[in-house]
Amino acid sequence: MGQIHAYQMIAKDKPFEQLEFTIPEMREGEALIRVAGCGVCHTDLSFWHYNVPTRHELPLVLGHEISGTVLDGPPELEGKPVIIPAVLPCGNCELCRIGRSNICQNQKMPGNDFHGGFASHIVVPARYLAMVPESALVDHTLAELAVIADAVTTPYQVIVKSDLQSGDFAVVIGVGGIGIYAAQLAKIFGGMVLAIDISQEKLDCLSGVDISTTLNSTGLEIREIKNQVKGICRELGAPMFNWKIYEMSGTRAGQELAYALLGIAGTLSIVGFTMDKLEVRLSNLMAFDARVIGTWGCKPELYPEVINLVSEGKLKLKPFTETFPMSRIDDIFQQTLEHKLVKRSVLIPDFEGLN
Amino acid sequence: MGQIHAYQMIAKDKPFEQLEFTIPEMREGEALIRVAGCGVCHTDLSFWHYNVPTRHELPLVLGHEISGTVLDGPPELEGKPVIIPAVLPCGNCELCRIGRSNICQNQKMPGNDFHGGFASHIVVPARYLAMVPESALVDHTLAELAVIADAVTTPYQVIVKSDLQSGDFAVVIGVGGIGIYAAQLAKIFGGMVLAIDISQEKLDCLSGVDISTTLNSTGLEIREIKNQVKGICRELGAPMFNWKIYEMSGTRAGQELAYALLGIAGTLSIVGFTMDKLEVRLSNLMAFDARVIGTWGCKPELYPEVINLVSEGKLKLKPFTETFPMSRIDDIFQQTLEHKLVKRSVLIPDFEGLN
Repeated sequence: MGQIHAYQMIAKDKPFEQLEFTIPEMREGEALIRVAGCGVCHTDLSFWHYNVPTRHELPLVLGHEISGTVLDGPPELEGKPVIIPAVLPCGNCELCRIGRSNICQNQKMPGNDFHGGFASHIVVPARYLAMVPESALVDHTLAELAVIADAVTTPYQVIVKSDLQSGDFAVVIGVGGIGIYAAQLAKIFGGMVLAIDISQEKLDCLSGVDISTTLNSTGLEIREIKNQVKGICRELGAPMFNWKIYEMSGTRAGQELAYALLGIAGTLSIVGFTMDKLEVRLSNLMAFDARVIGTWGCKPELYPEVINLVSEGKLKLKPFTETFPMSRIDDIFQQTLEHKLVKRSVLIPDFEGLN
Repeated sequence: MGQIHAYQMIAKDKPFEQLEFTIPEMREGEALIRVAGCGVCHTDLSFWHYNVPTRHELPLVLGHEISGTVLDGPPELEGKPVIIPAVLPCGNCELCRIGRSNICQNQKMPGNDFHGGFASHIVVPARYLAMVPESALVDHTLAELAVIADAVTTPYQVIVKSDLQSGDFAVVIGVGGIGIYAAQLAKIFGGMVLAIDISQEKLDCLSGVDISTTLNSTGLEIREIKNQVKGICRELGAPMFNWKIYEMSGTRAGQELAYALLGIAGTLSIVGFTMDKLEVRLSNLMAFDARVIGTWGCKPELYPEVINLVSEGKLKLKPFTETFPMSRIDDIFQQTLEHKLVKRSVLIPDFEGLN
């Protein structure tokens, strides 16, 4: 072996370039992983199309939502299936020590700080690799589990940080690739869930995971949506305060709606990203004793809890995940950009001469 | 006796009208209190000048920052000096039960829901009255302690909610009647405190409580202030992340600065109120794993902790408090409105024929 096959980003909107390079010399604490699957995330599109610069200069292999099998590294991991956390903290700094490792300033992210997962293999720090038990591989392939590395764990951390309690009213705005898991997780935590989107197709998908309370907000004014949401809350018998609102759409419209829904003792979680600013009365937070919390990635310490939920069959990934051969990377990026794919795409390495 | 003497608000900006009324029949669980002092708060000015409506219709006796002595009520309280919490929760609802009593929707506020403290006596629910131990009356008069009921406890709850830890960098924007206590409390909690204001006079006051790190932001651009704040943080040897920012000015400029200072793992507390909106990029919260929390009043459960800090001599109220006879109410409201008074004013009843 000795070679890594990969697709690297050359420049904005350009086709990915296939390359081969020698497996870098492994340092203490690193692991060599054979990639099972790598998810296509909105962050990858930010790099490829929306002018967000990668921290490592181009050309660079993108991809940070990776599952695979350890080929070389710490003996206890060898041969084991793992998820690579999208954010790999240093584990030693002040932020890591106060439980904020997800925002560690020395953190490394595959496909951003170094060559990522759109490849046959990857070398990463081994410290935070999350073991995948056999039980998690009954209903899902290892490739499908790649989405845990970002699409699932990010909303998991959000739900935990928002302190969602059983019986709370949980409003998820935007049930795309990440929001779908926010909605599922909110339900698993005991929340009374309302999903809002402008795509009826996405809302319809939710019935597969037993979430039937949805609102298609297409063409509605914020005031009207607010009235409908209040009515739904009342119908569900949920409290009219202490709402947990999750903004997953990453759009100005979504954020405006989310902020408008914030009331007494409410918590708004900002998960979707947009460069757009909006006009808000911050003092509302004071008058409502409310808060807005942002959350970046997920600390690796929480990964085992998420993998457990999948193992126990509580959290379903399969209905929202679709796998493609990695050789279709250009096509899949383009289709994702054009919002043509309803499910999260995971690319599976299919380089010639490998397997 | 049998009569309460008071000053009531008739209409916006109009002189207060002196009145006498019979002490209302006391119900189970209520207490009759002889007012020692009642502070003049910005909220009173909101009612009197800034068109914020009181919940009870006018005319109404304002004033919610009250200390006094229990004349009648539960036997264990009779004859005892007490602070009346500015926010009196019901104690039974869902919000009270989940520890959010400060935002209880059945809460009553003196001088807003019923006749307040600019009076000789007041009748209030006895449940949450905070006992004042002898030790708190060594350095302060009972009248001076009135400011605990809002000016001091509100920032106390803020500091607690922001999870300020020893060694954190704490930035207090606006060191007026409430900010001055936020700064003191942040220091007591072990924070490395920087106070920012546009009034040199207010900043100078801080030396009396051993806070020497100040920044007069008059005429400075936000970018410039930000650079100076970073420099100060570095000089203090405080961490460059996880900043605790307290916006106490209740101005658009203050909030804009506060939001701009928010960085990695930061917490911005919104305490000052303004109707002004501002344009913000909410997604910064996601990118920084940061949060903005609003806080309304202070739950009565925290009052004993604050009174303890005063008893122990750690928290100083006297340098920032000035007492006046209550008969000067018109004059003091006017001067407060015109920002002519640097210290918090407490009005002491001086009705003829009483005492």
